[in-house]
Amino acid sequence: MLYTLSLRKVAKYRADMNQTTTTQPLRWEDSKLVILDQRRLPGAIEFIEASDYLQVADAIKEMCVRGAPAIGVAGAYGAVLGALKVQTQDREAFLRQLRNIVDTLLRTRPTAVNLRWALERIELAAERGSDVSGIKALITEEAKKIHREEADATDRLSEYGADLIAGCATIMTHCNAGALATCGCGTALGVIRAAARQGKIERVIVDETRPLFQGARLTAWELKQEGIPVTLIVDSAAGHFLSRGLVNCVIVGADRIAANGDTANKIGTYSVADLASENGVPFYVAAPVSTVDLSLSSGDQIPIEERRPEEVTGIGSTRFAATGIQVANPAFDVTPSRYITAIITDRGVARPPYQVSLSRLIKGHA
Amino acid sequence: MLYTLSLRKVAKYRADMNQTTTTQPLRWEDSKLVILDQRRLPGAIEFIEASDYLQVADAIKEMCVRGAPAIGVAGAYGAVLGALKVQTQDREAFLRQLRNIVDTLLRTRPTAVNLRWALERIELAAERGSDVSGIKALITEEAKKIHREEADATDRLSEYGADLIAGCATIMTHCNAGALATCGCGTALGVIRAAARQGKIERVIVDETRPLFQGARLTAWELKQEGIPVTLIVDSAAGHFLSRGLVNCVIVGADRIAANGDTANKIGTYSVADLASENGVPFYVAAPVSTVDLSLSSGDQIPIEERRPEEVTGIGSTRFAATGIQVANPAFDVTPSRYITAIITDRGVARPPYQVSLSRLIKGHA
Repeated sequence: MLYTLSLRKVAKYRADMNQTTTTQPLRWEDSKLVILDQRRLPGAIEFIEASDYLQVADAIKEMCVRGAPAIGVAGAYGAVLGALKVQTQDREAFLRQLRNIVDTLLRTRPTAVNLRWALERIELAAERGSDVSGIKALITEEAKKIHREEADATDRLSEYGADLIAGCATIMTHCNAGALATCGCGTALGVIRAAARQGKIERVIVDETRPLFQGARLTAWELKQEGIPVTLIVDSAAGHFLSRGLVNCVIVGADRIAANGDTANKIGTYSVADLASENGVPFYVAAPVSTVDLSLSSGDQIPIEERRPEEVTGIGSTRFAATGIQVANPAFDVTPSRYITAIITDRGVARPPYQVSLSRLIKGHA
Repeated sequence: MLYTLSLRKVAKYRADMNQTTTTQPLRWEDSKLVILDQRRLPGAIEFIEASDYLQVADAIKEMCVRGAPAIGVAGAYGAVLGALKVQTQDREAFLRQLRNIVDTLLRTRPTAVNLRWALERIELAAERGSDVSGIKALITEEAKKIHREEADATDRLSEYGADLIAGCATIMTHCNAGALATCGCGTALGVIRAAARQGKIERVIVDETRPLFQGARLTAWELKQEGIPVTLIVDSAAGHFLSRGLVNCVIVGADRIAANGDTANKIGTYSVADLASENGVPFYVAAPVSTVDLSLSSGDQIPIEERRPEEVTGIGSTRFAATGIQVANPAFDVTPSRYITAIITDRGVARPPYQVSLSRLIKGHA
């Protein structure tokens, strides 16, 4: 186990888990947000029943729920949970309190833009209500709509992405951009799932993804459940496999994509992209348009979250690293767009130059 | 702890450890080989007292002793331990038994050429003896000579390497190429130590080196003991730091260098080399000439050891990876010589084209 559980209320669900419920990171039930605790997967299937927005903030910060699209959805529901408990009937006072709730949720993780995107939608929905109870109903509906739309988006982008995969493909992926990360069938793994349904996938090479092992724990587990063959490797072996001609393409998710196509994703993504490029292997990013941030002209402006040293120096209570040293633990890196063959979105596939193609995909449908 | 201890005799030494004894991987004492158990560092300082060559073979295979130069020295002493127990007085029968002992030791790990190099020296020394007791004395002396020479070699190459480092340098290294790996002051870390004595080192960025964490456990520990500032990172963050201009040069060790300069080293080295090249950061390999294998024209011919899946799927008795999946665990990769700025040896610094420069360094002194 990666952490001691700091959240106040943990509900354990048992037995009758089918695949859909075990890989769905979030469920909205009886005005509560049920969060699959991804820190414990695949060893234990446990859920956190959040009735308070601070629980949701903590669950995002502690990575019980992770993955850019999923934390967007979680953030939206978190704002709803917070709003439902606000007692005032004064519209302006209510909106001010909602603003504070949103700010707290926004501060949990800085890199994925989906959180900001979803919370902005909640605030816009709130503006449309004329009284407090109306606003509460409107933002609850908006959160559900975001949830539904983000799930649908992964279905659409998966189909676009599968068209890019030739048969008998060995695909490499980094981190987890699956159902667990997205509330749908996944971004990178959605594409792989769709291609697998078309009989095109021979094997997926999964980078383990230090420090939190999302590849070894989550991606390998999701693919295994689907019956897709997995080969797990340490992150630093990616170059070895790419250089030996053993990979047909790489597909990853994204936490934020700047207007020029520069992409922030889990630490190590840039390395894999550079190595893919060096070895002539196509490198695809798969993400819903909620991950695209046209307000940033390039990736240099994307904030990179620095997480705690203990993620690197040990596992659980076991410390293996030497003591008395510094640790740097950036959770993300930025892949310059020149390494990216195409960006697969729910509105179609963007090709370089991304300034033009991304803008056209997004503004064309705005 | 990474493994259950499979070796038969473990002797614990305590207290009065000074820096030299704690970082010396091997000591020859009273016709026994005392091996520092590097699997347990830095948490515990324990030694294995080997009186039998099979114990030495096991210690090499299980990575109680590791690092190309150190396993060469351990192999030489292992052959001596085996030979000392051979009872026959018949010279030819003795040499045949020595051949079997050498074969067993050679099979322990395939990639580092130093093991073969050292065992060939032992066999050549044996040939020079006219009777069994004479041979036993000759090979014992030869093993001690290899030990001494390999230690001296690291001193010399460290000085050559330090000349390449400009002041205020932040250096990145991968795996452990330190005192623990070499019986001397280290290859990559020898260079760093020598440069630090000249006041040129600001900080060393240490890749943790999955799956066995030699960077986090051994390199960070060695450097900390020397008072050299360390920043530990996960392997996949190397690209992030290289791309942000935070690294002045990379220095690594080597397990085998082909005639054209292609270099086998710990898995992940190729990735770091490619990323260094992409970002205009010099990439140096430091190794004694015992690591150069002129019999191989290129790195394609270097055998790559595949180690057990459990190194990747968990740590100690904790399994974190999903079950029912394949694992690939190559222990080394090959860095093409085009990524290598220079190869620092105990006979001087080789520059491209390496076919010429390596051959000149080695044959010029043969």
